[in-house]
Amino acid sequence: MSNVKIQPRLPKGMRDYLPQAMLKREYVFGVVRDVFHLYGFEPLQTPVLELNEILMGKYGEEAEKLIYHAQHPGGKEELALRYDLTVPLARVIGQYQSDISLPFKRYQLSPVWRAERPQRGRYREFYQCDVDIVGVADMSADAEVIGVVVTALKKLGFPQFTVKLNNRKLLTAIGQYSGVPDSQLGDLYRSVDKFDKIGADGVRQELIERGIDQNVVAKMMDLILAHEPGLGNLDVLEQALGDIVAAQEGIRELRELAACLADMYISPEDYSVDFTMVRGLGYYTGPIYETVIEEPNLGSISGGGRYDELLGMFRKESLPMTGVSLGIERIIDLMDFFNLYPAHINRTVVQVFVTVFDSSTRSDSTRLAAELRAQGICVELQLEERKLGRQFQAADRRGIPLVAVLGPEEIAQGMVRLKRLSDGEEFSVPRSEAAAQVRALLGQGAG
Amino acid sequence: MSNVKIQPRLPKGMRDYLPQAMLKREYVFGVVRDVFHLYGFEPLQTPVLELNEILMGKYGEEAEKLIYHAQHPGGKEELALRYDLTVPLARVIGQYQSDISLPFKRYQLSPVWRAERPQRGRYREFYQCDVDIVGVADMSADAEVIGVVVTALKKLGFPQFTVKLNNRKLLTAIGQYSGVPDSQLGDLYRSVDKFDKIGADGVRQELIERGIDQNVVAKMMDLILAHEPGLGNLDVLEQALGDIVAAQEGIRELRELAACLADMYISPEDYSVDFTMVRGLGYYTGPIYETVIEEPNLGSISGGGRYDELLGMFRKESLPMTGVSLGIERIIDLMDFFNLYPAHINRTVVQVFVTVFDSSTRSDSTRLAAELRAQGICVELQLEERKLGRQFQAADRRGIPLVAVLGPEEIAQGMVRLKRLSDGEEFSVPRSEAAAQVRALLGQGAG
Repeated sequence: MSNVKIQPRLPKGMRDYLPQAMLKREYVFGVVRDVFHLYGFEPLQTPVLELNEILMGKYGEEAEKLIYHAQHPGGKEELALRYDLTVPLARVIGQYQSDISLPFKRYQLSPVWRAERPQRGRYREFYQCDVDIVGVADMSADAEVIGVVVTALKKLGFPQFTVKLNNRKLLTAIGQYSGVPDSQLGDLYRSVDKFDKIGADGVRQELIERGIDQNVVAKMMDLILAHEPGLGNLDVLEQALGDIVAAQEGIRELRELAACLADMYISPEDYSVDFTMVRGLGYYTGPIYETVIEEPNLGSISGGGRYDELLGMFRKESLPMTGVSLGIERIIDLMDFFNLYPAHINRTVVQVFVTVFDSSTRSDSTRLAAELRAQGICVELQLEERKLGRQFQAADRRGIPLVAVLGPEEIAQGMVRLKRLSDGEEFSVPRSEAAAQVRALLGQGAG
Repeated sequence: MSNVKIQPRLPKGMRDYLPQAMLKREYVFGVVRDVFHLYGFEPLQTPVLELNEILMGKYGEEAEKLIYHAQHPGGKEELALRYDLTVPLARVIGQYQSDISLPFKRYQLSPVWRAERPQRGRYREFYQCDVDIVGVADMSADAEVIGVVVTALKKLGFPQFTVKLNNRKLLTAIGQYSGVPDSQLGDLYRSVDKFDKIGADGVRQELIERGIDQNVVAKMMDLILAHEPGLGNLDVLEQALGDIVAAQEGIRELRELAACLADMYISPEDYSVDFTMVRGLGYYTGPIYETVIEEPNLGSISGGGRYDELLGMFRKESLPMTGVSLGIERIIDLMDFFNLYPAHINRTVVQVFVTVFDSSTRSDSTRLAAELRAQGICVELQLEERKLGRQFQAADRRGIPLVAVLGPEEIAQGMVRLKRLSDGEEFSVPRSEAAAQVRALLGQGAG
């Protein structure tokens, strides 16, 4: 091996997760996984690399500029790194038709890659966390994925959030009612999508600049800006658009959805109908949902909707699909902001640091560590000669709650001395009872 | 979106894991993670993409041909997909010197990419599972990583395995003793490494072909082929090579290692000293270890060793490092072969399938599902209109143990009917006790 020094660094926009960060991430991953299981969603894993042809042509031109490409060395396959978890799901459904029975409810919690300009809170490798239901046209499926979001955020301890509901069909109907030509519906979506950033006046102005008649824009904005509580906005819309088929369907779907949410004991305070919420992606065909919190406003912490046509790319006939992506990276950022990690998510997995008094007692300490581990206690054993005081310091710095001392005296008496670092209290216990005593000192929650 | 049909397929040598496969993989991942925690190892995660310059020049020319390269679109960074977890660890240690206190014990369980020719049991994306200790020169560290392997394999239920021990210093000493010139030591390693494939005669012949004198080869093979039980092989070697410094060191290290293993209550039956075990990688500098099982012989299921110089590539001064990689993909293959999955690793996470009797009772079934979920029961709710018989069939096909029926009669009486599919037995319980009854029917282990 050559002895050239290489500067150890990462590609731009990528991160390492050192153990303390990982333990927190894994806590969040664990909570959401448990919620997915409660709702009967099961894990799927797809490879990081997909064939180019699978990814290209699905996300729109701008998005596709952000896709990382890769090569099989010397091979002919043109590859790309996963850009999201939805297109791989559609591929899987198309590919394993005989192995997958419907409805298919899966989650995937995996990194994706996008060559965005790195900035605070935005990375080029980040985790996505998706739940989707394939094969159910009924709104009960949309209600379930919303239920997953609400349950997960509550279990994580989020003090406040709102799931915004809308329906692509209503946007279409609003456009038709206002006289926006079909060819400009895309412009309409794109402008309304900027509502949070540029406000009502900004959207109004942009639509006029896009060549939509001023009166049309005014009519439309009146409807979009309705803000009756609960499902009240749907009543407003029904009065105005009752004759348009797309409006009837969209309103019926959202009412059915709300009825399911009520059966799931989800409080109407947790959601609202908001016609300014559009979702960027082109493939949605029905209800769309997005979760926001008021403060701090980091953007949405979940987004999703129904996309009944996407699968048609990979399969003779499409299937109804609906799903939601938890903004797991933002959620992790907010966990720290709101201080939501439970006390037992310590800075370390280690429960006891077993010290080594001197070289003559190493064997005994090694045996004690093995005995504790055999009882299911997570143990850090001092591995090299080091002064006892410095061993205590190391345990304390790492946040390990208990230190075990096994000096010549303790060994002679068959005892172990356990010191709790939080208050310095010491406990002398027979060695055979050390594991039970550790468990007692850590309390139920800390195990 | 265009309506072109794309054949849904994977890049060669890559895999999807459908839910049933994932549940088994995650069981294995969970067991080994718990063992890592018992020994005080904590999780590290590095990005999939590394800068080219970090990976190249570390693995040897042949290996580097297998590295997948990637590009940041439009950017200038030359990137590569992770080839193993050891070089990223060395980079991390070099990069975060002020954040990482020593000893640093980490595990990483992540996919890596190698453009090998796909064949049975060999994939181009596969998971590696590494534990390493940075900063400890003492053999106690090597003993800990071996302890992790032994404990993990026992917890997974492996009926038989042997950890083979050797030491690079002994191979060097054997070469020196036999008169192999230093410049040919690499040839020596490479030939002995093939012992399992080509046998003693094959190795003998290859060494002679490489230009090593026939008498030298004969002397060496006598030593390498020693097969005394336990540490007996070390005595044979000590008698022959006692004057060579490298031999003295190598023998002392393995004896210290064995003493630590004894203190950890690891039976001498679980390991042996085997001079024919070499390990392919160039960077090992001390003890090396490899775990094999006799039947079926799929190759080693763990491999590792001490590599005290690698970190010098990324840091002013190197640090002692030792570690082991669990062959997690082979272990997963063997779990099926030996039928080691516990009974409660069902084919599904779902514990109860809540049926919907007809459209008039959907609300009640939805509420029952929500009530059970609130009590921690994993529930699949029927989402669309379907005949009751077909709902039972679907539950059975998925391996869901219990089905809940809530017809008009049960609703009127405030009861739920639970049917256990394994024996068809039915239980009628008050709705408020349904969760407790489900738990009882599933038994402790099935939760």
